[in-house]
Amino acid sequence: MEYSLAELAAKLGARLEGDGSVRIRGVAGIREAGEGEITFVANSRYAGYLADTSASAVILPESFPRPSIPALYTAEPYLAYLEALHLFDRTRDDRPAAGIHPTAVIDPGARLADGVAVGPLVVVSEGVEIGTGTALLCGTYIGPGCRIGRDCFFYPKVVVRKDTSIGDRVVVHAGAVLGDDGFGFAPDGEGYRKVPQLGRVVIDDDVEIGANTTIDRATTGITRIGRGSRIDNLVMIAHNVEIGENTIICAQTGISGSTRVGKHVTLGGQVGVAGHVQIGDGAKVGAQGGVTKSVPPGESYSGYPAQPHQKARRIIAASRRVPEALRTLRELEQRVHELEARIRELGGT
Amino acid sequence: MEYSLAELAAKLGARLEGDGSVRIRGVAGIREAGEGEITFVANSRYAGYLADTSASAVILPESFPRPSIPALYTAEPYLAYLEALHLFDRTRDDRPAAGIHPTAVIDPGARLADGVAVGPLVVVSEGVEIGTGTALLCGTYIGPGCRIGRDCFFYPKVVVRKDTSIGDRVVVHAGAVLGDDGFGFAPDGEGYRKVPQLGRVVIDDDVEIGANTTIDRATTGITRIGRGSRIDNLVMIAHNVEIGENTIICAQTGISGSTRVGKHVTLGGQVGVAGHVQIGDGAKVGAQGGVTKSVPPGESYSGYPAQPHQKARRIIAASRRVPEALRTLRELEQRVHELEARIRELGGT
Amino acid sequence: MEYSLAELAAKLGARLEGDGSVRIRGVAGIREAGEGEITFVANSRYAGYLADTSASAVILPESFPRPSIPALYTAEPYLAYLEALHLFDRTRDDRPAAGIHPTAVIDPGARLADGVAVGPLVVVSEGVEIGTGTALLCGTYIGPGCRIGRDCFFYPKVVVRKDTSIGDRVVVHAGAVLGDDGFGFAPDGEGYRKVPQLGRVVIDDDVEIGANTTIDRATTGITRIGRGSRIDNLVMIAHNVEIGENTIICAQTGISGSTRVGKHVTLGGQVGVAGHVQIGDGAKVGAQGGVTKSVPPGESYSGYPAQPHQKARRIIAASRRVPEALRTLRELEQRVHELEARIRELGGT
Repeated sequence: MEYSLAELAAKLGARLEGDGSVRIRGVAGIREAGEGEITFVANSRYAGYLADTSASAVILPESFPRPSIPALYTAEPYLAYLEALHLFDRTRDDRPAAGIHPTAVIDPGARLADGVAVGPLVVVSEGVEIGTGTALLCGTYIGPGCRIGRDCFFYPKVVVRKDTSIGDRVVVHAGAVLGDDGFGFAPDGEGYRKVPQLGRVVIDDDVEIGANTTIDRATTGITRIGRGSRIDNLVMIAHNVEIGENTIICAQTGISGSTRVGKHVTLGGQVGVAGHVQIGDGAKVGAQGGVTKSVPPGESYSGYPAQPHQKARRIIAASRRVPEALRTLRELEQRVHELEARIRELGGT
Repeated sequence: MEYSLAELAAKLGARLEGDGSVRIRGVAGIREAGEGEITFVANSRYAGYLADTSASAVILPESFPRPSIPALYTAEPYLAYLEALHLFDRTRDDRPAAGIHPTAVIDPGARLADGVAVGPLVVVSEGVEIGTGTALLCGTYIGPGCRIGRDCFFYPKVVVRKDTSIGDRVVVHAGAVLGDDGFGFAPDGEGYRKVPQLGRVVIDDDVEIGANTTIDRATTGITRIGRGSRIDNLVMIAHNVEIGENTIICAQTGISGSTRVGKHVTLGGQVGVAGHVQIGDGAKVGAQGGVTKSVPPGESYSGYPAQPHQKARRIIAASRRVPEALRTLRELEQRVHELEARIRELGGT
Repeated sequence: MEYSLAELAAKLGARLEGDGSVRIRGVAGIREAGEGEITFVANSRYAGYLADTSASAVILPESFPRPSIPALYTAEPYLAYLEALHLFDRTRDDRPAAGIHPTAVIDPGARLADGVAVGPLVVVSEGVEIGTGTALLCGTYIGPGCRIGRDCFFYPKVVVRKDTSIGDRVVVHAGAVLGDDGFGFAPDGEGYRKVPQLGRVVIDDDVEIGANTTIDRATTGITRIGRGSRIDNLVMIAHNVEIGENTIICAQTGISGSTRVGKHVTLGGQVGVAGHVQIGDGAKVGAQGGVTKSVPPGESYSGYPAQPHQKARRIIAASRRVPEALRTLRELEQRVHELEARIRELGGT
């Protein structure tokens, strides 16, 4: 694929400044881009790299001065960059062909819509329904009674256990496990008795779930991931958790049972959230934070135990001064002791 | 399934108070339960919800006053609730039929007892022995020389590498990896030389292992999970770790090499345990705790580095007061400085 | 396998002290070794166990005094122990036979060198090249356009997505996912728009990757793991991360996007590293550390937020004294208050 910069400007709806005949063959970050590639600057933090870039052109916000290389100006440089990424996508297509690979094992009681693509060694169980346009790449297991919407994409070796419901346009990455048993055991004298996990998992439309992430079925009722939420790799969502719409959960985060996470929440990487708490709409928790109590809507929390981020920062900054403060305290004690002795002398007691 | 409350009382061995003709069709938590469902209250913390529940009946401990809805009284309301869950289980059965699915790949040198159920695309290697009643759902790999007891259940895509021994009634969830190499590398000039991992993994009876959890084989000798222990998802158990009986390990916890964890221990989620330490019988480590030294039996530890929980809490509470204490300290220094000056004046020095 | 100690001395290039006719049948750690086994002591920390070991012989550094049992002296006892481990390896061979298992699904456009071993239910896609001596054990998926070098070993159920390049002698453990999408989403009004992940993953020679670990493809460009680096289980490497040569990354560690980790770095277990930072050559980060800023070469960091280890230790030690210091501070305030009152009396103000 190759476009002139003028063609690219037209495709991206951007205003061209400079030589429109420059040939563009790819897209790259401002430090990596070379000759024949277009890059972008979305905020002033990266403007300093503009002088040194080897890119042949750059996508810029309207507020930027004209650089020495040809530029495409647009109100939303990052979204234009995403468009350009799609235009120059040269990666191979790993979508299986529509139809069912001969090595797939499809239960006769499963109902697959026209246009479903099932790759090799996929297992689809009894009572499953899959909507049109959905692709199961390879080696995935869909347990009995699952419903999967339209235009979903399942990467290899996903496990979806029985009775799970999945909406439209859901993407599930390799090795994710949806609907395995919640972790429930009741003490029973010497050992434990398993609490049967009879609920299920519901994944709403437009959700994306990362590689090797696990989402447990509810004890009774539903573990739910709300519409448009994005979950990274190696995340653990426990039984009966409810996650709202458009929430972002970064890698290796774990959410304990029955916790409710609102919409537009962001949880950083390796966050841990206790069970039975609430994280309000729009809240953010910084990486490695340990949430032990509910977080109010819109607040930024961090640290262990998690607390308002500004407060957590002050405590961390203060903790660094403690070794010196302890020395000061000791000296002060001595000085007070001496003052007391002097006072006694002066006061005649 | 549907029972009258009187029938249910008989099945659960509970004492009925109120209208025994009420029809019960399901079980749910006190906040989720609706008409036709029975719920339970096991401790007084949840008693407040009783007034507002829409449930048609409730299981209660003997000590509770009679509520406005019909009730079943029992000494162990939680265990009665577990019984009721089983009675009303309406989830689909995902157990493969006894016998061997035609797409499974079974080495002729493997010995499967009568009544073993092997689902599609399972691979069973040379020298494997599997006891009666055990089911391998789908896509699981059993490496050469493994022994698996009776009445085990393997969910999809489990990997069990060579020479692993698994007891009776063990449950392994999807994507778990048992017996992969321990992480051992010896510095060798510029780089590292791999330490061969020649030991194995032994899983005792009645253990349950969560989805995508990994348990490494020993360098030499055995990595062991004791009878009745329960391990959640995405847990990492390193080489030569030994875990006692009836120990609970929550999600995303990691235990480093050669550490010994006692029996009846509870490790919260995202706990990290250093190598070559001991965690005594009955000890507890709170979520996200970082265990750097041995934990005595029966103790509760938390924080990083983990220390006795009450002490850790006091330190956290104190740390929140440090920013203000530093200000106080500075003021105090100034006041002492002024006192010293005044004393000098008064003392005539 | 069984050797006389004299034969073993010759094979290991070690100096024999004591009875060379002793029969040795295995190798074990000093506390586990029994009759007929040889053990080793590499540093004086373990010398105390020598008196009590039941081993029949021991490998020792030249500096050690002669023990009561026969000994093999060598300059490098740990490397000799590794050699001995190989000599006595009695674990089963789980390498698939050379050739292609009939249940494997190999695209006609894939090019497999002679001597490649492909086990059951492996899927190899269009355009893949695999070098001689490489083995894919079972159930692995190799996406279109991947290149895999010579003498690699893939344990079961690995997923390698499109266009991934893998060097020679690379070992990938069960359930690892290489080349899945990076986690990139751009806010787009109410929700998020996916940032296409068009880059790829490059794994250099002699790398080892742990079970259920995930390594994301780059947004554009490359996510790279440098030659000889070793990555443990359940590790998360995000898009555009670059890791140098001979770096060690312990279990459950996560590295955020675009971070550069140098060579000869060691990251402990459960470490979290922020995005867009650098960890210099030879640096170390202690277990559970949270790296929020770049770490200079050669430094040891720990804690959250990570800081130089000695400083972090001092802060932790100091924090334990804070509860008492707060009491002291309160008392001191009172004493100063009293001094001020006394001074006022004495000074007549």
